[in-house]
Formats: sequence, C-alpha cells, structure tokens
Amino acid sequence: MVEAEADQIERVKWTRPHLLGLEELSAQEIMTILQTARSFKGVLGREIKKVPALRGRTVVNFFMEPSTRTRTSFELAAKRLSADVMSISGSASSIVKGETLRDTAQNIEALQVDMLVIRHSEAGAPHFLAKFLNASIINAGDGSHEHPTQGLLDLYTIWEKRGSLDGLHVAILGDILFSRVARSDIWGLKKLGAKVTVCGPPTLIPPGIERLGVEVTHELGDIVPHADVINLLRIQHERQKAILFPSVGEYARFFGLTSERLKDAKKDVIIMHPGPVNRGVELASELADGPNSVILDQVTNGLAVRMAVMFLLNRARMGGEDELD
Amino acid sequence: MVEAEADQIERVKWTRPHLLGLEELSAQEIMTILQTARSFKGVLGREIKKVPALRGRTVVNFFMEPSTRTRTSFELAAKRLSADVMSISGSASSIVKGETLRDTAQNIEALQVDMLVIRHSEAGAPHFLAKFLNASIINAGDGSHEHPTQGLLDLYTIWEKRGSLDGLHVAILGDILFSRVARSDIWGLKKLGAKVTVCGPPTLIPPGIERLGVEVTHELGDIVPHADVINLLRIQHERQKAILFPSVGEYARFFGLTSERLKDAKKDVIIMHPGPVNRGVELASELADGPNSVILDQVTNGLAVRMAVMFLLNRARMGGEDELD
Amino acid sequence: MVEAEADQIERVKWTRPHLLGLEELSAQEIMTILQTARSFKGVLGREIKKVPALRGRTVVNFFMEPSTRTRTSFELAAKRLSADVMSISGSASSIVKGETLRDTAQNIEALQVDMLVIRHSEAGAPHFLAKFLNASIINAGDGSHEHPTQGLLDLYTIWEKRGSLDGLHVAILGDILFSRVARSDIWGLKKLGAKVTVCGPPTLIPPGIERLGVEVTHELGDIVPHADVINLLRIQHERQKAILFPSVGEYARFFGLTSERLKDAKKDVIIMHPGPVNRGVELASELADGPNSVILDQVTNGLAVRMAVMFLLNRARMGGEDELD
Repeated sequence: MVEAEADQIERVKWTRPHLLGLEELSAQEIMTILQTARSFKGVLGREIKKVPALRGRTVVNFFMEPSTRTRTSFELAAKRLSADVMSISGSASSIVKGETLRDTAQNIEALQVDMLVIRHSEAGAPHFLAKFLNASIINAGDGSHEHPTQGLLDLYTIWEKRGSLDGLHVAILGDILFSRVARSDIWGLKKLGAKVTVCGPPTLIPPGIERLGVEVTHELGDIVPHADVINLLRIQHERQKAILFPSVGEYARFFGLTSERLKDAKKDVIIMHPGPVNRGVELASELADGPNSVILDQVTNGLAVRMAVMFLLNRARMGGEDELD
Repeated sequence: MVEAEADQIERVKWTRPHLLGLEELSAQEIMTILQTARSFKGVLGREIKKVPALRGRTVVNFFMEPSTRTRTSFELAAKRLSADVMSISGSASSIVKGETLRDTAQNIEALQVDMLVIRHSEAGAPHFLAKFLNASIINAGDGSHEHPTQGLLDLYTIWEKRGSLDGLHVAILGDILFSRVARSDIWGLKKLGAKVTVCGPPTLIPPGIERLGVEVTHELGDIVPHADVINLLRIQHERQKAILFPSVGEYARFFGLTSERLKDAKKDVIIMHPGPVNRGVELASELADGPNSVILDQVTNGLAVRMAVMFLLNRARMGGEDELD
Repeated sequence: MVEAEADQIERVKWTRPHLLGLEELSAQEIMTILQTARSFKGVLGREIKKVPALRGRTVVNFFMEPSTRTRTSFELAAKRLSADVMSISGSASSIVKGETLRDTAQNIEALQVDMLVIRHSEAGAPHFLAKFLNASIINAGDGSHEHPTQGLLDLYTIWEKRGSLDGLHVAILGDILFSRVARSDIWGLKKLGAKVTVCGPPTLIPPGIERLGVEVTHELGDIVPHADVINLLRIQHERQKAILFPSVGEYARFFGLTSERLKDAKKDVIIMHPGPVNRGVELASELADGPNSVILDQVTNGLAVRMAVMFLLNRARMGGEDELD
C-alpha cells in the first residue's frame, strides 16, 4: 500500500469478528471497509494480484442456495489474500443426510476453519452461527434479509464515482419485497447520508418500508428526473410464491428503464444492477452496455470489498494491526 | 516441530507406499502414524497452519461415492501440506462414459499425480489400483471393508485422551454389518491392545465377527457399565438393501444411548461418533454436545491423521527422511 | 530450463493473445508451442513440478459442456504454473438464469481474470469472446469445430516419438463428422508436413473433407499397412442426432482395430486415442495396453502442452520474454 494512501485511511480500529449485516454497522465502520477496499482495488490493478495477508488461514464458502457469482467472487477474494479456500454447496453437504445447520457448521469449524462465508435461505442463519462458532462468519445472503457485501460494493461503486454519498439521491427499482440487496443497500445508503426512494409495483414493495427512512413511489416518471443513482434490482421469478405482477412484458412496460425514459434523467446518472441483468425487462440492453452503466465496475469492486472484509475480520480475530501488504 | 517432541517420536522407518487398511499394519506402524499426527496437530494450532512438505506434489481425491466430510478433510489436509489438490467425483468423471476403473485411474496417474485418495463402493478397489499404479493410494472407504483413516483418527482420539489403548475396553455400537469404520476400528484397537465388544441387533452384527477377536452382545445394558469408550456408528439407511430392524424408533429404544442409560457408565467414559449423528436415534442430543463427547475432536484429529498419512507415504515414495517442517 | 535445451528452442516471438484453433497458426508457431511443451515436460519429471510463471494470475475454466479429462488437465496445468484457477461449469453458472454468453464472460473478466479456458457447444463461441474480452481465450473445444490443445498434444506425441512429422502418414479413424479433434489434428498435421488419410463409414465422413488436403477411404484394410500413426477417434454416441451406423457391433466389425488387423501394419506403428477408449469397439483392449499404444503418453503430454500454451499466451499479454523458470 502506498504511504500516502495509507495516511488517508482513517485507522478506525475494526473490532468486529463477523460481518452479518449493514444494519448494525456505524457510518465510520462502513467507511473503514470502503477505504480498505480502495487499497485492495489498487492491488487488483497490479500484475501480481496477490497479498500474503491470509496465508495459512482457511476460508470455507458454505452455500446452501445456488450461486455462481457471489461464490466465485468470495473464492477469488480469498485466494488473492493467499488463504486456502474450499467451497461446500448445499446439495453436496451432509445436510442431505439430515444433519442440522449447527452440526454442519461445528463440523466445518472443527477442521480448523478461520472464516465461514454462508448463504442460507433462512433470515438470521449467519447470526445464529455467529453465537457459538469461533470462526468469523460472513453473511453472503440470508433469505430476504441482508446481503451485506453486495450492499458494500454498491456503496463503494457510488463513492468511487462521486467521492461522497452525502446528499445523493438514490433510486432503487423493482422487486424490493424479496430483495436482501435492497435491504442492505438501504441501511448503508442512509448511514452515509444518501436520500433513498424505492420504486416498483405495490405488490413488490413491502408495507411499512418507510420506517427504514425511504420514500416510496409507484411511478418511474416520479423518480428518474431526480435520481443521481438508479439501482435496478433483478426480477426474482424464483423467489415469488404467488404471481405478484401480471407478466414480464407488463413489468417492463411500466418499470423497465429504457433510453426513452432516460432522456428525463440527469446526464451523469449512475445506472447499477447486481446482475445478472434480464436485458429488455428491468433494463434495456443499450443502457446496460452504455456510458452511464457501472455494472461491470460493481463486479470488480465486489472483489475488492470482499478482500477488505476478510482482511479486517482476520485482523480483528488476530488482534493485530498488520498492514495489508 | 519442536526438538523435544521430535525426540519423543520413535522413528520407525515407514516404508509403505500405500495406505489400504489397518488389517495389514503392525502396532508399531500404527503408532508411527499417531505420533506423526501429534506433531501435525501442533501445526494446526499455529496461526500459519501450513507446512511445505508436499509442495509441488499433486493429490487427487477420487470419490466414487458421495462424501463431504471425508473429502473435505483430505482436501484440507493436502492443502496444509502445500500440495496441489483436485477432487473428482464419480458422477463428474468419465466413468459415466463407460470407462473402467483401471482406465480412469491410469489416466489420472498420467497427469503426473503423486497420490490418489479413493472412495469406492466395491471392497478391494484401492488394493486393485495399488497393483499397477505408481501413485500412492489412500483408501478413503471401500464398500463395507475398511476406512483406515477413520480408524486411525478414532485410535488417535482415544490415545490423546488416555495416553495408551492397552487394556481399555471399547464398545462399538450399531450397524456393524455395513460398517467399514467398525472393521478398521476393530483391527486397530486389537493391535494396540484394547478389548473390543460389538453391540447391536442380531441383524446388524455379521455372523462370525468373533473371529476378529471381539466379543458380541445384543444388550446395551451388558456393555455400558464396563466400557471406557463407546463408539456409536451411524445407522446407514442408504446401505441396507433389506429392512434389518423394525423402525428407527424401535432401534432408538433398544440401542440409542441416552442420559438415563449413561448413568450406569464409568464417569469418564468417552463417547465417539464418526458423524453425522442422527440425534435422538443412536445418540441423545445432550450427550452429543456433553462433556463425555469427543465428536468434534474426532473431526480435528482426522485432519492431523490425514496430514500424517500423506506425509509418511510421500516420504516413503521419495525415499527420504525429511523433517515435517 | 537447461542451458543447452534452451538454445535448441528457436525463439520465435509468440505474439498471439489467444489460442482459438490450429487453422490460423503457422508451422513455426506450432513448433514454438511443441518446443516450449518439451521444456515443461522436463519440469513434470522433477520432484517439484511447479514453476512460478503465472503466480498472481487467475485462470478460469469455463466449461459449458461436461468434461472431466480436459478440465482436469487445464486445471492442473494452471496450478503447476502457480496460477489461481477456478472452474465454472455450465449448469452451475448464471447461464441457467438466462444470461447471455457475452454477459457471463464479461462478468468473469470483471473479476480481474487473466485467462479464460472455454468449452462450448457452439462453434465459434471462443472467437466471439476473443473479440471483446481483454483476457486471453483458450478454446477447449467449440462444437464440432476445433479442439486445438488436443490437436497440439497429438502432434507433440508423434513429434516426441519420431523427431519430425514431415512425410509421416497419419490415419484418422472413426467419427470424423462430429469430431473437433479430427479437424484440429488435420490442420496441424498438414502444416507440419504429414500425409493424412481419414477412414470411416461414409455416414461419418463429412462430404468435401478432401478440401482440407486429406485422402478418404472407407476400408480399414486400405490404410493399416501404410500408416505410421493410427489415431482412433471415439464413437460419440452423444453427438449423433440421427443413427449414422447400424450398431456398435457392426462398427467394430468393420472399423475396430484388432490384433488380427494390426498384423498388416508397420511394426512400429503408433496407436493413438484421445480417450476414453470404448474397449472392443474402436480399439481392442490388448492394443490399448500394448507396446504400440501411446494413449497414456498423450495424457501426460496434454499437461505439458497446456502449460506451454498458457505460458506463451501470458508472455504475449505481458509483452515480456521471461524464461519459464
């Protein structure tokens, strides 16, 4: 890490052993992660993209729901920190033999595992494990509750483009009801001073969401002209138990972002999407690939953010203050 | 490895290139593995849990039956010895294209593989491969025959707790008929001087098992008061082709270990289980998590034992006498 | 690399960032790969089979068709070059969520990936990706089009045995129609001066194949006595959409290579097969394991060739001229 850059980092002592959600983090803690991630993004630009920070540590990716993107990102982040990493997926694990989550997790920890990245269909599963495991737990998505590293990479991407989130107006569009990404984004954005409006059909906006400090609209036209950032969530067919909107075509007509609709937007509006994009549904193809899109930056930043989180949790666990390089 | 500790290790020259079963090992060879495992358990307690002993060597996990625990343990053990490791599972492999086991194994070896960890549904498959491959073969379970590293970790766990196995009385409960763990345990325990009693419903005890030098009982009450160690095997629904006991509830009533039944046991009796536990069937939940249980120690010890086995086989193959660190 | 050996290597500057097929390579480029592979084969003979050439680089195996052998070979090749390597298979990837190939590939690249090894059912998929990705693309098989590393390992194996391919007569037998291996072999063999005859039932020989500069025969007896090399392709039941030969038995009777038929062959004829062999169909078991067979050499050479390809592409990308060790 460059000397000058290191000085910029406000060295708030990071003490948490786990990353369970953004709800419980302070603005200062979030900024510590973002600033650490900036250093790691520098590492990713080098020819040798590896640092020895987690050498000899073992990270297990324990994914009880299918995932390629998030799992891959965590796996690469761990490898670039020189950790040993193993992925265990739900169907492969002993869960199918009727073992409880607690048993499985304790067994994984007994293999002298230092960090457990967990994705689970039940909200609160990572918090439950954090109570009795010594390993650091990273929540990689728990039900419709939180997906904190996705939230952090969204925050990082905006911060990188604009220098600050304070006073920015961020619109989150689409399936808010089932979205752990929306929830983590909202917690983080509010803490860093952004104004947040959620927009979607009434059936996809959970009642009472205003209590999180956000505004609600059901008209895309109400929000597009004012937004500094438009974050489009994926329509999650797979999570819907009832039919909550008439059809994909109908959804696209009312809530899909198109070039036509973007004419009313600020010229430098940032278009985000956690991926994979349903091209032509929530987002027109030319916008996904256009100059306002930061969708691929989000992927790269996810790597930097996950390296930062693993680095900080490991440092807290070890009680040390090592430099990252 | 600490100097003093190294001196304690009786440096019996380990010459076997393969680990196929405990039946063919001498007591001295078993002790060499356990003593080497003790050194590796020390390594696992360090911050950097890695030694360079197998750097540049390649270990392939070739599992023709599903497994998460054993495969994961072997994979981690290999990584902590700095080996390159790859896992090939039965369904993913070319076996589905009709290739024979011999062809597949020879092809794997042609990739310049040094060690092949194999699990296979047929007894003797590892022995068959050992005949014509140059790579070291480790049996990770062959049919109902042997599972030597599970046997070794059970031996290690008892040895660690008691200092010696000589004269101890070990009860093995449950599904003896289909259990390769039982067979490996019995060979190892007898060689190290323990007395072994197997206990279960007559349908789950193979006829003639007494020839292995064990006693047989069908009454849990006969054995609980006298045992120094109670090793509970998992009821393997999946291996039974006929119904060998009336029901799980029935089994639990007669052979499940409960707090009530443990009242008659020695105060310091060791409760073991290879996992995953059917809580409330072969073992009550409070006992699995109680002070007599060493179930999670077994998992950690499995890692140390597998590191020791890989280390010794590699040393024998290389003809050297390198220190492990 | 030994000094003397290094001198032997004609240091043609390798400038291609991708390996898409053998059709576009010059004879000199092919020889550069083979000579580099020879150095790596030397590395594979050492106790430490690893070189640091790709340390800190990331290689992703992206296989949209099932494969164990080729994927395993690429994975090991990358590990022995000290790269970080990840495998993503078709069914596991986001493709199932309806993402396009382009989106998936761009997302993989956004994880700061240096090299993408791709297998895909559509001919031209790797070429399509090479147009807009910065990562180096290696074609690991695209439809029935090319499988260049298989072609290169076949060339290497013949070159290693005979010192030169110039003037050799190579027979390729079997399913030419659906075989990307046949196509890569033909391109490479012709460029290095070999004479090529393809042989099989008319239904498995694509019309117009003579334009590639090969001769065609439908009689095994026409070619066996004259061939220096007989390369038997696997009957690919899975790729046939119509029934193109009456039965496996019928095929074996007319085109299967047997000891009886080999009596007419040159004494030192080389028998090759990309594997896995259908023993008793295209090749008799005793010939697969006999002295003329180089089938297992092909597997080992595949590793050396893939290391060479990755090494050269990485060097071209970095613009450097580093020694491989």
